Amino acid sequence: MLLNFLDLLGTGVFAATGAMVAARRNLDIFGALVLAFVTAVGGGTIRDFTLGSMPVFWVHDTSYLAIIFLSTALTLFGRRWWDQTRAILLVSDALGLGVFTVIGIEKALRFGVPPMTAVMMGVLTGAGGGLIRDILAGRVPMVLRSEIYATAAIAGGLFYIVMQDVGIARSVVAIACACVVFCLRLLAIYCNMSLPRLTAPKQSRKPVRE
Amino acid sequence: MLLNFLDLLGTGVFAATGAMVAARRNLDIFGALVLAFVTAVGGGTIRDFTLGSMPVFWVHDTSYLAIIFLSTALTLFGRRWWDQTRAILLVSDALGLGVFTVIGIEKALRFGVPPMTAVMMGVLTGAGGGLIRDILAGRVPMVLRSEIYATAAIAGGLFYIVMQDVGIARSVVAIACACVVFCLRLLAIYCNMSLPRLTAPKQSRKPVRE
Amino acid sequence: MLLNFLDLLGTGVFAATGAMVAARRNLDIFGALVLAFVTAVGGGTIRDFTLGSMPVFWVHDTSYLAIIFLSTALTLFGRRWWDQTRAILLVSDALGLGVFTVIGIEKALRFGVPPMTAVMMGVLTGAGGGLIRDILAGRVPMVLRSEIYATAAIAGGLFYIVMQDVGIARSVVAIACACVVFCLRLLAIYCNMSLPRLTAPKQSRKPVRE
Repeated sequence: MLLNFLDLLGTGVFAATGAMVAARRNLDIFGALVLAFVTAVGGGTIRDFTLGSMPVFWVHDTSYLAIIFLSTALTLFGRRWWDQTRAILLVSDALGLGVFTVIGIEKALRFGVPPMTAVMMGVLTGAGGGLIRDILAGRVPMVLRSEIYATAAIAGGLFYIVMQDVGIARSVVAIACACVVFCLRLLAIYCNMSLPRLTAPKQSRKPVRE
Repeated sequence: MLLNFLDLLGTGVFAATGAMVAARRNLDIFGALVLAFVTAVGGGTIRDFTLGSMPVFWVHDTSYLAIIFLSTALTLFGRRWWDQTRAILLVSDALGLGVFTVIGIEKALRFGVPPMTAVMMGVLTGAGGGLIRDILAGRVPMVLRSEIYATAAIAGGLFYIVMQDVGIARSVVAIACACVVFCLRLLAIYCNMSLPRLTAPKQSRKPVRE
Repeated sequence: MLLNFLDLLGTGVFAATGAMVAARRNLDIFGALVLAFVTAVGGGTIRDFTLGSMPVFWVHDTSYLAIIFLSTALTLFGRRWWDQTRAILLVSDALGLGVFTVIGIEKALRFGVPPMTAVMMGVLTGAGGGLIRDILAGRVPMVLRSEIYATAAIAGGLFYIVMQDVGIARSVVAIACACVVFCLRLLAIYCNMSLPRLTAPKQSRKPVRE
């Protein structure tokens, strides 16, 4: 099935970005595996914890682990082609974001959660892994700073809920939602768009709970 | 019911501190939402994972999500009043700490855990969210450093267990425990008290597992 | 039973390393308790979340909490003996790594997961706590950087799976696996071995998802 294929493609691409961050931060090969792993399945794992879907989705299906191993190995061995394959990776990553968002929303809806929670679960599935990866790599998660990344997933998620309320067939809604996320993300990269950064008032430097 | 109202108040105030930290760290609006969210419900979420209370408490009750959205919006729009409202926030935050501690202990006891674990769950519910917020914001959690924050929750938790053993009515114990945490926390702020920081011996700079 | 004793020994030693890191980072006593706690039971807790083994193993058995308290107190009061006891701690820590790896694999196998997942759960149980400790202490986890630590657990885990396939008695396999991890870890410390750090190509400084 197409969705299964796209799921594994997204897993592999997310794993590749994890391995790349590990190499850039000069971690070792175990660090690359861990970062690849959390980027690829971290979001879905927390989603499953939260929904109570136990055991977590990759525990019995070793194809996820296999893809992550393979992708990490390919990424590390193919370091000399990183510059040339950058565009392919960005596009595949945007595709992975769209597919993961749809998978997250649909799993949440199968568990009977309210629409708002389902959108959240979609965003978590799509953007949660990269967030954990950045924390492990010792930097403030990119997704919290200025990128239009999670924002694309949120927009796609809201689109999904509205489309579904209208009564359109589930498979059409899923494809449309993934396309919305994919296109918004590519548009953001192409136009170099980002959310404005917040600023705090000058005088109140002293945080509330410090 | 009073406890429900205080629970939502605490959720809103914790969310506000998350949004404030996000603005001070120059994150974007999605970062503010994420930090508000983890501060408000992060501790309770890990408590629910640990106890096996699935799905997690906010999954089916969207009032938490709604409060967090509202609080984040108000906090970011009202940036110019941060200095004037600082005292209100500190007091409300102390109240939230007390209420969350009681909620955590009582939920843990309903799951039949030993008293020591219940106290831990209370502290986790009250102080865990701020800890996750600080990690996401890229700083060593305030609560681990020098504040009398978790300490107030621990004292309140032990007080709860002792009171309950004596045989006092549950509702009285709950209110008394929240008051103990609240007063200790306010006292610590007012007197500028903090726990002493630990020091390591000079010679042994080399950590065990490095 | 021997395994229970070794489990509690490992818990105590891991807690001691957590308390030491806390003192070196100048956290307060609550920070030392939290770091001791996550180092000792953090890996097993995430393993239990993932397998869906709820509630988590230490919730009903307070001996873990008791050992962690005791070990933290001893570690902080005995700061002047840290240099003299360093060798004992390193050896005990290696023993703890071996024991935790075996416990993790066996628990995963009892839940009927595939061998690869079981190895992962063993590594997570052994090395996951130290990883969380380092994140809370605000540094890139040692285990991701260059140490032969998780690598020893991986080797031991693969050894376990192979031995079990051959049909050797479970108790023999368990002891042999713990010995493999223990010896590899000690060898790595003694010979000062570490995994090579990864490097990224010069030109492509711009990460994919930034």
